[in-house]
Amino acid sequence: MAITKRIKIRVRAGDTDFTGFAFNARVVEWFSAGRIELLRSKKITYANDGSLLVDGQPQKVSFVVGEVYARFHAPARFDDLVQLRTRIVDVSEKTLRFDYEIKRLPDRKLLVTGTSTSVCLSRETMRAEKIPADISERLRAGRWPPKDRGSLQKALI
Amino acid sequence: MAITKRIKIRVRAGDTDFTGFAFNARVVEWFSAGRIELLRSKKITYANDGSLLVDGQPQKVSFVVGEVYARFHAPARFDDLVQLRTRIVDVSEKTLRFDYEIKRLPDRKLLVTGTSTSVCLSRETMRAEKIPADISERLRAGRWPPKDRGSLQKALI
Amino acid sequence: MAITKRIKIRVRAGDTDFTGFAFNARVVEWFSAGRIELLRSKKITYANDGSLLVDGQPQKVSFVVGEVYARFHAPARFDDLVQLRTRIVDVSEKTLRFDYEIKRLPDRKLLVTGTSTSVCLSRETMRAEKIPADISERLRAGRWPPKDRGSLQKALI
Amino acid sequence: MAITKRIKIRVRAGDTDFTGFAFNARVVEWFSAGRIELLRSKKITYANDGSLLVDGQPQKVSFVVGEVYARFHAPARFDDLVQLRTRIVDVSEKTLRFDYEIKRLPDRKLLVTGTSTSVCLSRETMRAEKIPADISERLRAGRWPPKDRGSLQKALI
Repeated sequence: MAITKRIKIRVRAGDTDFTGFAFNARVVEWFSAGRIELLRSKKITYANDGSLLVDGQPQKVSFVVGEVYARFHAPARFDDLVQLRTRIVDVSEKTLRFDYEIKRLPDRKLLVTGTSTSVCLSRETMRAEKIPADISERLRAGRWPPKDRGSLQKALI
Repeated sequence: MAITKRIKIRVRAGDTDFTGFAFNARVVEWFSAGRIELLRSKKITYANDGSLLVDGQPQKVSFVVGEVYARFHAPARFDDLVQLRTRIVDVSEKTLRFDYEIKRLPDRKLLVTGTSTSVCLSRETMRAEKIPADISERLRAGRWPPKDRGSLQKALI
Repeated sequence: MAITKRIKIRVRAGDTDFTGFAFNARVVEWFSAGRIELLRSKKITYANDGSLLVDGQPQKVSFVVGEVYARFHAPARFDDLVQLRTRIVDVSEKTLRFDYEIKRLPDRKLLVTGTSTSVCLSRETMRAEKIPADISERLRAGRWPPKDRGSLQKALI
Repeated sequence: MAITKRIKIRVRAGDTDFTGFAFNARVVEWFSAGRIELLRSKKITYANDGSLLVDGQPQKVSFVVGEVYARFHAPARFDDLVQLRTRIVDVSEKTLRFDYEIKRLPDRKLLVTGTSTSVCLSRETMRAEKIPADISERLRAGRWPPKDRGSLQKALI
């Protein structure tokens, strides 16, 4: 099983736009909340300066979003209560891949699916860096069957 | 040539996050601004209730975002002035495909690329609907060489 | 006792800005979430078109924000868990006044105080309207000792 | 005359909420854009780490928002073009006071007024600090007639 974290989100006024539905960019913001809660469940957090903490210990690396993709199946509306399921579907040398699924509660109607990659960066050089072993092991534990590690960029070709 | 619109964006405090860079979800929000300005340049606007106006005349359809993808090549920082280039790269029966490129000014460093599809919906049934001919003709005019119309979803396979 | 609702908020990446602290406008957005949860606790909710529902029944009025004020005592940081306490401190003929207090958990350090007024509008005329009796009674129940009903605008004189 | 800066803002989808109007917290975010453009016009900018630059030279202080107040006279709607006028109405030892006025274009209907204070903080101690003379002189030049320097907090009493 992939490492998975579920969080509930109430669609706030500020999440919606004039169409009456949740705004697509806000849904992408929810993905960020999902990633952070998943990492927190493995005792990986972010310090105030953007660096990673593992068990509270500062690391020389951080994760930044390299790519994000969202597909909107049905609209979320103001005041809907939704569940965001975030999973780590791949841990490669320098990147993590997450996937996302948002369902409306309580009827579990599928609203949004998505995926993103996070790239491990050296805080010093700001270049891609190997994910430290203690991080990759935590995130691989019980990981999903191997996945294509190619770039989402393929979609653009 | 594809229909193209360039807008300048100043990276505001509210566009950034604690890492000091523009937040990925805000960049996706900029894409929305790019689409709207491109459509406006063709006299296609949105009414306050989310319906489309063509030359100011209300239409029975609207466009909603079906998919969005963004790839972050380099970070935008607070107070950067960037240029967002939005293009329509495909007009199919019921969908539009846009692509996006964000460069920093004045050095034109590439920061972000992306793509999205908008689906034409009937305002009445909220189901996918053919794009009215007067809209698709305006947006096809001078369109880009034929592009793969498959779903960005391919990226997930 | 004033009608009071407490909610917990985790400071997300999208709530922060490049200074590393929660962005002032996002804190104002939290106030909105506090109001909505307080009203929900009294079975007053918003329909998708912005109109009010009382016990699920559509009303001919809505509440819109007339004024909002926030004072920042200490910064909220990324990943802080904070508690927002929202209270109704006055119910007048056509307006509600709320106050807000945000404390950091678990140390209960005071971060933000604020206040706002919501104006009851007719959905038809978009003009200020008397608050329906069944709404004002619910919100007055156990209300706070009488407060000055003057405009926050005084602050500007 | 007070130092004044006018900027135009197009109301984007992400600025609106499900009521069809610009969301109150986004209007507060616009104030931030107004302040930054006003300061830029006096060659006072923010570095990426939140510190101030004067003529591009890093300072040991920064400005943070201490209080903000907004009053909504009439709603801004999606796609409205509005003008935000930002002025410095007081420069005291450790604080700046700004006021704001948002009018719809082209009819100049008044939509929003507001005010805020920014506090000068030492970057080192994070405590309130005297505004450096070269900054206060630039911002006082041609300043508004003396104003009440009391806290907006008075409004709450």
